This record gives sequence, C-alpha cells and structure tokens, in this order.
Amino acid sequence: MSRPTDDMGTRSDASRAIAFSDAVFAIIITLLVLDLRVPDVPPGHLLSGLLEQWPGYVAYLASYAYVAVVWLNHKGSFNRVKESDRGLHWANLFVLFSTALLPFPTALVSHALQEHDQRDQRVAVAFYALIGALLCASWLAFFHYLARRKDLLKEEVSERHFPTERLRALVGVILYVAAGLIGYLVAPLAGLVIFVVLPVFYAVTSAGLYQVPLTHRRARRPPPSGR
Amino acid sequence: MSRPTDDMGTRSDASRAIAFSDAVFAIIITLLVLDLRVPDVPPGHLLSGLLEQWPGYVAYLASYAYVAVVWLNHKGSFNRVKESDRGLHWANLFVLFSTALLPFPTALVSHALQEHDQRDQRVAVAFYALIGALLCASWLAFFHYLARRKDLLKEEVSERHFPTERLRALVGVILYVAAGLIGYLVAPLAGLVIFVVLPVFYAVTSAGLYQVPLTHRRARRPPPSGR
Amino acid sequence: MSRPTDDMGTRSDASRAIAFSDAVFAIIITLLVLDLRVPDVPPGHLLSGLLEQWPGYVAYLASYAYVAVVWLNHKGSFNRVKESDRGLHWANLFVLFSTALLPFPTALVSHALQEHDQRDQRVAVAFYALIGALLCASWLAFFHYLARRKDLLKEEVSERHFPTERLRALVGVILYVAAGLIGYLVAPLAGLVIFVVLPVFYAVTSAGLYQVPLTHRRARRPPPSGR
Amino acid sequence: MSRPTDDMGTRSDASRAIAFSDAVFAIIITLLVLDLRVPDVPPGHLLSGLLEQWPGYVAYLASYAYVAVVWLNHKGSFNRVKESDRGLHWANLFVLFSTALLPFPTALVSHALQEHDQRDQRVAVAFYALIGALLCASWLAFFHYLARRKDLLKEEVSERHFPTERLRALVGVILYVAAGLIGYLVAPLAGLVIFVVLPVFYAVTSAGLYQVPLTHRRARRPPPSGR
Repeated sequence: MSRPTDDMGTRSDASRAIAFSDAVFAIIITLLVLDLRVPDVPPGHLLSGLLEQWPGYVAYLASYAYVAVVWLNHKGSFNRVKESDRGLHWANLFVLFSTALLPFPTALVSHALQEHDQRDQRVAVAFYALIGALLCASWLAFFHYLARRKDLLKEEVSERHFPTERLRALVGVILYVAAGLIGYLVAPLAGLVIFVVLPVFYAVTSAGLYQVPLTHRRARRPPPSGR
Repeated sequence: MSRPTDDMGTRSDASRAIAFSDAVFAIIITLLVLDLRVPDVPPGHLLSGLLEQWPGYVAYLASYAYVAVVWLNHKGSFNRVKESDRGLHWANLFVLFSTALLPFPTALVSHALQEHDQRDQRVAVAFYALIGALLCASWLAFFHYLARRKDLLKEEVSERHFPTERLRALVGVILYVAAGLIGYLVAPLAGLVIFVVLPVFYAVTSAGLYQVPLTHRRARRPPPSGR
Repeated sequence: MSRPTDDMGTRSDASRAIAFSDAVFAIIITLLVLDLRVPDVPPGHLLSGLLEQWPGYVAYLASYAYVAVVWLNHKGSFNRVKESDRGLHWANLFVLFSTALLPFPTALVSHALQEHDQRDQRVAVAFYALIGALLCASWLAFFHYLARRKDLLKEEVSERHFPTERLRALVGVILYVAAGLIGYLVAPLAGLVIFVVLPVFYAVTSAGLYQVPLTHRRARRPPPSGR
Repeated sequence: MSRPTDDMGTRSDASRAIAFSDAVFAIIITLLVLDLRVPDVPPGHLLSGLLEQWPGYVAYLASYAYVAVVWLNHKGSFNRVKESDRGLHWANLFVLFSTALLPFPTALVSHALQEHDQRDQRVAVAFYALIGALLCASWLAFFHYLARRKDLLKEEVSERHFPTERLRALVGVILYVAAGLIGYLVAPLAGLVIFVVLPVFYAVTSAGLYQVPLTHRRARRPPPSGR
C-alpha cells in the first residue's frame, strides 16, 4: 500500500512465492506415485511381481520423506520472511528446481535395484546422492542469502537462525556426497539405507535445533510493546 | 503476532498445511484419470475396447469418491484446528502419504479385472483393501493426536468430536480389512462392490453424525435477527 | 466465529472448496498437454509426424477452451456464494468429477482421428459428446441446488441468476447430445467442429447474459445502507 | 463491496486468477521432469545411457528457466492489477495456454537431439521457437490489454510500465523467431543455446528495467524511521 511504485516488481510480500512453492511441492510429492506401476508380469504372477518391486517402495518412501522435510523446512523459513525480493525468488526457484528433479533419480534407483545389475545400481545410487546434495546446496544458497539480508526478515527472528540453518544444509551436502560414495564404492544398498535415514535425521534435528536454545532466545525477544 | 519467537518453526496457523493438502488432494483426484487410457485394440474395435474397460471406470469411481470423502473429512477436521504443530504436520503428511498411494492399487484392480485372472484379481483387491485400511489408519493416528491435544483446537469444538472421529476411522480400518478378506477369499467382485459402497457409507454417516444433535444445536444458535 | 459449533463440518465459507477446485481445474487444463506426444516416426520424418497429429491439436484446443469456460463459470458462480454446505460440496465435486474426465475423451478423439477408421471416429466423437453432456448435467445439478438455496447466496445476488444459469446448462446438455448424434450419424468431423465452437459460444453468451438485464437488476439492488 | 451486483461475474479482484495461474505454472514446471526418463539401455549401461541424455537436461533447464521467468513476470504484472475483468481473464488464459504447451516442444527438442538426425533437429528447434514466440505473443496481448485499461490497475502504477513491458514482449517474439530461423537454417545447437540464454537475458533485463530509475525511487520512499 504505502510501498513506492517502482518496487512493485522487485519487493513484495512472499505470499505468491509460498502458494507457488506449495503447489510445486504438492505436485512433486504426488508425482512420485506415478513410478509405482502395475508390474509387467504374465497373468497369475501379480503377487510375485508386486513383491519384486520392493525397491520401488523404499525409493518412494525415501523421496516422500525427503520432500516432506523440504516442505516443513520451507514453511519454517518463510514463516520468518517478511518480504521477498528478486534474489530470494531466484534462490527459492533454485530450491524448487532441485526438489523437482527428485522423482528422476528415485525412478533410476528403483529401476536399477529391480534390474539386479551391480554397476547400474552403483550409478543410480550415486546419481540420487548427487541430486540429494544439489538439493542441500540449493538450501545452502537460500539460507546464505537470508543470513545476509536482515531487511527481508521479520524483526523477531533470531540473528543466529539462518546461519545455523546454513550449517545444517552444508552438513546435508556432505552427508549426501558421503552416501553417494559409500553407495558407489562399497554397497548400493547401504546408500539406499542412508537415503531413507537422512530425512528422518533432518526431521528430528530440525525440531531439536528449534527447541533446544529456548531460554536463551526468549531472553533476547524484543519487548511486546515494540510493536 | 503475540506468539513467542521460538515457536515460529514448530507452532503456526495451519493455513499452509491446508493449502498444501488441498493441492495434494487435487492432484491425486485428477491423476486417477490418467489410468483411463485409449484401449489398445485394432482399428475398428474402439467401442468394444471401451466397454471392456468397465472395471477401470468402476475403480476410478471408487477412488474418486474415496478421495472426495477424505477431502471433506480433512476440511471438517482443519475447520476445528486453531494452530498446527510439528506432530500434527507429520500426522497430516501421513494422511497425504496414504491418500497419494491410492492411484496405485486403483490401477492394479482395474488391470487385474481386465486381465481375467482370478488369482491376480484376488491379489489386487487385497492390495487395494490394504491401502484403504492404511488410509483409515492414518486418519486414526490423526484423530488420536487431536483428541489428546485440546490446545491446538478452537475453543468451541466439542470435546467428543475427535474421539468420535477416531472411532469412525477405526471402523474404517476394520471394514477395509474385511473387504480385503472377502475379496481375497470369497470373490474379488464382492470386494470391489464394497470399495464403491464404503465411501458412500462414510459420506452419509459423517453427515449423520454431525447432524444428529440438531435440536441441541438449534437451541444454542444465535437468534435469526442477528443477521 | 459466531457460528454454532456443530455446524463446523457442514456449513463453512467456500474458500477451501474454491482453492481445491482451482487446483483441480489447473491440473486438468495442464494434463491435456500430456497427450501431445513426440510422434512415433522413423528418424527424419518428424515434420510429417507432427503435421499428421493435427487432430490432437484441435482436440487439445477444444478441451482447453472448455475447461477455461468451466473455470470462468465456476468463478462467476462462487463469487455469488456466501457459504457452502455439504450438498453444495457434493454438487461441486460432481462438477470437478466430470471436468476431470475430459482428458480421456480428448485423447480418444485425437487417437481415432489419427487412426483413420470411420467407425472408431464415430465412437470417439459420441463418447466426447457424452462426457461433454455429463459436464453440463453436473452444472445443471449445481445451479439447480443453488437456485433453491437462497440462504447460501450473497444478498445482492439477483433472484433470477441461478435459474437462468440452469437453463444455459440444460441447453448445453442438449447441444452436446446433438453434437454427439451428428458426429455419430453424419460425420465425425462435424461433431469435432461443434466441440470447438461450443465453448466459444458459451464464453460469449455468458458475458452477454450477465450484462443484458442491467437496468432491471440495478433497480432491485438493496439500498447501500442495508449493510 | 460497493461494486454493483451485475459486475459479479465480469469484474472481480484477481485473487482467483492468481491462484489458478500459480497452480498452472507449478504444474507445468514440475511436469517437465516427466521427460527425464530412465534410459532404455541394456543392463550395465545406465551411466552411458544417462550421459547420452544430456540434450534432455539442457532442454529441461531451458524450459524450467523460461517458466520461472514467466512466473516472475506474471507476479510482477498482477502486483499492479487492482481488478480483473473478462478480457483480462482471457488474456491471462492465453498466456497460460502457451506456457502449458512448453513441455511438448521441450520433449521434441530433447528427443530429436538424442536421435542424431539433422532434419528432425531443425524441425524440433523451429517448433520450440514457434511456441516460444507464441508465448511472447500472448504476453504482448496481455500487456497491450493492460496498457489500454488504466481502470484495472492500481493507482500508483507508472503510466509507462505496461507499454514498456509490451515492447519487451515484442522483442521476445522477434528473438524467438530469429532463434528458430538460425536453428533451422544454420545449426540446431545454436538455436538451443539461444533458448537457454533468452530466459537469462529476460531475467536480467527485467530486473534492470525495474531498477534503473533507482535514485528517483529512493527519493520518494518513506523515511526509514517510519518503520
């Protein structure tokens, strides 16, 4: 309302970015199911066909959990954003870009595990790790941007919030690269297990990091009269 | 506004969870149509090809109705939620997870019925029942969470609402398991019929349960002159 | 806020129904493009392959225009709705159901026209007409419901609005049935032409019907002090 | 509120058009990933299969960037719109129509480049350019409509904004046609490079055009103490 005219295109509240991102996440998480297909087996063998597809179910679960955690992260981050500018939009579009890629390596891993070829499994797991790391890298960029742009944040946001998040994203990059190396050099299945565990780990620590330094943060909160 | 800083990531109004869920339900309900395909028949046999696909239409109808009822349930539940926390988000993501699976058993049932193999039909119907029961179980978890967390609910919500809903979800688990057993042990078509009837039953009883204490409610309603 | 507790599940503002419907329409209109595929031709024949797919482009255009008109209709209708109840939700879900079917007959028509088999073309066009008529029938039900439920409408809505809309929907049912008969009995292409023209006709008349009785309606408007 | 009754269907705030468009863009940008498929190679050749798909990745990147820029443009434009009427809805639906087509030429280009047939590559690149130009043409129509309808815009919008945007859209039409001609007559890969560069160019110039009159704007901005 009181914003100057020319900022209309560059600065704005983030509501459309949020709605757009929600839709993208919703589509990604739902598209994953398209890789669960009717098994291509002769009549009468549906049960064994379904059972042999188990890697597809594990890959589906891993990717669903990953997107869910990404969505929760996204929600937690934008809850702290007051305004968005062009740079933040592009950082957000980078996060969406790497999340949108996820169904592709998920399908690769699921395919390779059902094909029973060790070389392909190593490649597929390494590829999944690559996209997983890219996704963490996009969060790294996103958090790095917000860590330097206090003017885009709500006033009550702790100064240490986004630097801490940045660190978590960096750890994510390292863990996915490590999982990729283990999957490629040691055993593909080990990599797959890490892919399932990592989102769980993130879900737990994210809740943890928010809640641990509670007393500390409360002390720094601006007095209620400040608004 | 007056919420303490540290809750930003964990406690928040449920608007984004609702928007995200709406998008997921919209996608699931629309993806179902992708399983209605141009029949793979020689030129000139389109009509008979279309008619032979009737199980696909029935399966589509059953799943569409199921998702519609889930959406109505979801809307009715979140209408009563004041705030969401991380636990509720995960319960909600579990509901979305099991709903998002629905197109998969729908395709299986539709495929098996067109293939005319009794064994596969039994497997497909049992699998559909399994996912149907899982979906009811996710609602059970969701309602159980809300039944214990009064602080997340709006003040005017009846104390007995979510315990009652929990009971309905439990009945749903039992009915889908029963349908699966009947479909597997007795006749696949009987299972399919139950799958079509169950959402109808739910749609009706849910309206019923809301409307039973009508006289009680009318007494409490503000006088008509208030408008 | 001031609504009694027990109505929470049955009566509510229509905002979630609108958001859900928008998402469904958006998905349907976008899924249509999935039927435009890379033509399956030997290398070096891409151009002729693309040109031979022209029926697919026409069918795409017809269905896109149809969904666009449905969306505009939906928007115009819900603009007049104050509150939604369970009956309106189900009428709305019926509209979404029949709209969501549209990609299926679109693919059928496009397939049959590229296959050059007269019998299949007649069947496909008749099938498209059937779904088109079903969609108009769902609007008929929707408008019929609203025509009888003044309490769900905003006060300034003209008494004659929804009865008029009901009539337009009825005309739509008849026109699609007629197009199907012409396409089936006379010439499939004639049916296809009607499918493209019908949404255009609806887009034009809908604007017309809203604007013609302008003076009449203005006279009946409640005085501004009424609120 | 104070709007006359009869405008309900024709004039309204643009919030539903925005939500609908966001959903459409979200679906388009996410559907693009469906063209990244598990390569159809014999077991043990997944890595080379993945590497040979590189044109698919480039095409994906180009189209993702294009849709992202379209979304940012859309957001910037509707930020300036106060009310929407039927004409603007149709202009918007035309923009969505041409954006929704994008996955189709993307798949064509990606397919043709992997097929190693020069003739097909020329056709595919020309086709991509055609749709790219159509998309710019739809923006041209959209901006042209808004340039003549001041009454739909917010009061603080600069008089020169939409005429300038119209010019940018026109330049886009010309550049895509030029890229198509170069790709068709000279070298398909040159066309592809331009497709990747064009959105980048647009992203940069759009920011540029908004930011040039910076000093002017800063003068008008409310004093920092206002916060």
